[in-house]
Amino acid sequence: MTDPAQMPVVGMAGGGQLARMTQQAAIGLGVSLRVLAGSADDSAARVCADVRVGDDSSLDDLRAFAKGCDVVTFDHEHVPEAHIRDLEASGVPCRPGPDALRHAQDKLVMRRRLGEIGAPVPAYSHVPPSAPPAFLESFAREHGWPLVLKAVRGGYDGKGVWVLEGLGREEADLVGRLTGQGVDLLVEEHVAFRRELAALVARSPHGQGAAYPVVETVQEDGICVEVIAPAPGLDGDLAAEAQRLALDIADRLGVAGLLAVELFETDRGLLVNELAMRPHNSGHWTIEGARTSQFEQHLRAVLDLPLGSTEPTAPYTVMANVLGGDDPALYPRYLHVMAHDPGVKVHFYGKGVRPGRKIGHVTALGSDPDEVRERARHAADYLRWGPAMGPAARDETKEDAS
Amino acid sequence: MTDPAQMPVVGMAGGGQLARMTQQAAIGLGVSLRVLAGSADDSAARVCADVRVGDDSSLDDLRAFAKGCDVVTFDHEHVPEAHIRDLEASGVPCRPGPDALRHAQDKLVMRRRLGEIGAPVPAYSHVPPSAPPAFLESFAREHGWPLVLKAVRGGYDGKGVWVLEGLGREEADLVGRLTGQGVDLLVEEHVAFRRELAALVARSPHGQGAAYPVVETVQEDGICVEVIAPAPGLDGDLAAEAQRLALDIADRLGVAGLLAVELFETDRGLLVNELAMRPHNSGHWTIEGARTSQFEQHLRAVLDLPLGSTEPTAPYTVMANVLGGDDPALYPRYLHVMAHDPGVKVHFYGKGVRPGRKIGHVTALGSDPDEVRERARHAADYLRWGPAMGPAARDETKEDAS
Repeated sequence: MTDPAQMPVVGMAGGGQLARMTQQAAIGLGVSLRVLAGSADDSAARVCADVRVGDDSSLDDLRAFAKGCDVVTFDHEHVPEAHIRDLEASGVPCRPGPDALRHAQDKLVMRRRLGEIGAPVPAYSHVPPSAPPAFLESFAREHGWPLVLKAVRGGYDGKGVWVLEGLGREEADLVGRLTGQGVDLLVEEHVAFRRELAALVARSPHGQGAAYPVVETVQEDGICVEVIAPAPGLDGDLAAEAQRLALDIADRLGVAGLLAVELFETDRGLLVNELAMRPHNSGHWTIEGARTSQFEQHLRAVLDLPLGSTEPTAPYTVMANVLGGDDPALYPRYLHVMAHDPGVKVHFYGKGVRPGRKIGHVTALGSDPDEVRERARHAADYLRWGPAMGPAARDETKEDAS
Repeated sequence: MTDPAQMPVVGMAGGGQLARMTQQAAIGLGVSLRVLAGSADDSAARVCADVRVGDDSSLDDLRAFAKGCDVVTFDHEHVPEAHIRDLEASGVPCRPGPDALRHAQDKLVMRRRLGEIGAPVPAYSHVPPSAPPAFLESFAREHGWPLVLKAVRGGYDGKGVWVLEGLGREEADLVGRLTGQGVDLLVEEHVAFRRELAALVARSPHGQGAAYPVVETVQEDGICVEVIAPAPGLDGDLAAEAQRLALDIADRLGVAGLLAVELFETDRGLLVNELAMRPHNSGHWTIEGARTSQFEQHLRAVLDLPLGSTEPTAPYTVMANVLGGDDPALYPRYLHVMAHDPGVKVHFYGKGVRPGRKIGHVTALGSDPDEVRERARHAADYLRWGPAMGPAARDETKEDAS
């Protein structure tokens, strides 16, 4: 199939929902999106015309996939750095490049580098594998309990992060198990934050930057469940500082593409929690809530096209993640959600429904943040639980029936 | 590939840009879109995972395509009515159904039916194949020259429509050639309109209706080049009348899906020009300019889901079609267009670039309709002509250089 208009081919390693939503943006721009998916059933593989099934930790699969791509990008952080360097050496630009991406792959590299460039970070330390319990005790004497233990590599969505209230038997067993498995660990102070924020920016290879409004992210069990854009009541100076910080990090790290900076808002100011260099859950609201969606913006950035307007389309936009419930049939619930609120937008990722799994998201827009949150929340809860609206409600129903 | 969440499969006959943009909406909803495309190179075939290559005027191809679809819909009007009836008899719902769709397939059926239900239409008559020139002379004596001659079936984008200034030799030859080819003809008065409008509505099988703001459409050589939403300065009563008229036609004709009613605004009020029962060029602005795009709305309607909000996202949205110029390479021009205006949205259909062919569209939004038009116009012109900005400008440049 030849492209009649000589449009570029963007390869995206990973076939999850981020690649899926990138395909919507690619269709608009007329850019061809090729995904490297682990299976033909993957979220993005179900909706793309150019799907390569393979293992994105295999160099052979990556090489075959990248052949003919004008640029390669990623929908996750797990492609090995050495493989990315190999692709670049073979002449395929990877964006973000390996020198930038390692800061999203390795939390210790990230913490050290942020420290070097003067970005505010929580107190942290590498945990020496020789004597972890003694080290943690000593770190706690300085910073207090609880502590946050993190795997240096490979964590996401709360996986690879443990909050230790003390060093009892259970905690000592955990630490012993992890070090026994060779998991490299980082310890951080447990930040007493007011709330969590995220600053999403894009940077193009030629150096243009663009910042979205700073959002509030609401987490449950380490999973982002809700994003409010902009963060309600956020001080204007603090919002500008967060945007400047994210643009500065993107610039200093040489990011090409999106950079999401997860932040803690604390009494002593902002602290950087995590970095991601790809479309990010905290930016899904931009599909409806901003003139340029984060997915289009990522494509524009990795293609070194001028960046699009980040102007909001409504005073407030709220995104709520839809988690799987017990019933695999999501679609019949569309009827209620759409009839209840014609303005709510439903996004389903084409994934199998399993309890607690992120399977989609909903977006609502309006002028009153509380009202918009309630609308998004209702839709997400209904899609998860159906008419019973949650285990609590269902337990009540059972009691009523008894 | 089994669908883990039991989402419906929508089949769309036709693989053009309307199916392509419907795929963007289907990805969001998690609905599977299957397209029947004439070739694997078709606009929609390039971006869909489930593509059947075949001839949508062949009953065998249609049957094979429809097998396993929960509902079949169309991105054009040219699937034969008898075939649609056959699919419905085999148990696959077609939306719009054949009884409604014939009003978009046959201009004489449409004119007669609109007359019956009291919708305002231009004076028209079927042209008897026996003595067309005499008939046209007689029609002109009543309604004046020029006349508009239309093929009863198969026209689109100005094809199948001829404006006759009189009945000289050239015109007589044309009429003779058409009747000789067995083309069934309709004659209409040439309406002295102030401007052209379009009223886009959706109707679902269970009878819900939703109307978008009434737009102004600007045509050149029978091709829509620009759409301004809402129609600037349109009297509120007239706008409401246009919406009511479109909703009423959708209801009386039993439309399931979208209905675009092309209207003339005249000194004697509104007159219906054409009907289309699918996503329509006059509704492309809704992708960015309305809370629910026409493509999502069409999917919701044909699936009998509750309809989405048609609320605009900006005071004014302007869509300008991008026509092909002499240079097939469109992409390098993205750089200028995007740098010049970060708020303009570019849509490219993945089609080969040929002079005058609709290959994409651009959208701009804002508060001042003139300014928004200028921005959309500039982007569309630049994408067509490049730095020379049109044949006139290029001629000037040549003169300057000489």
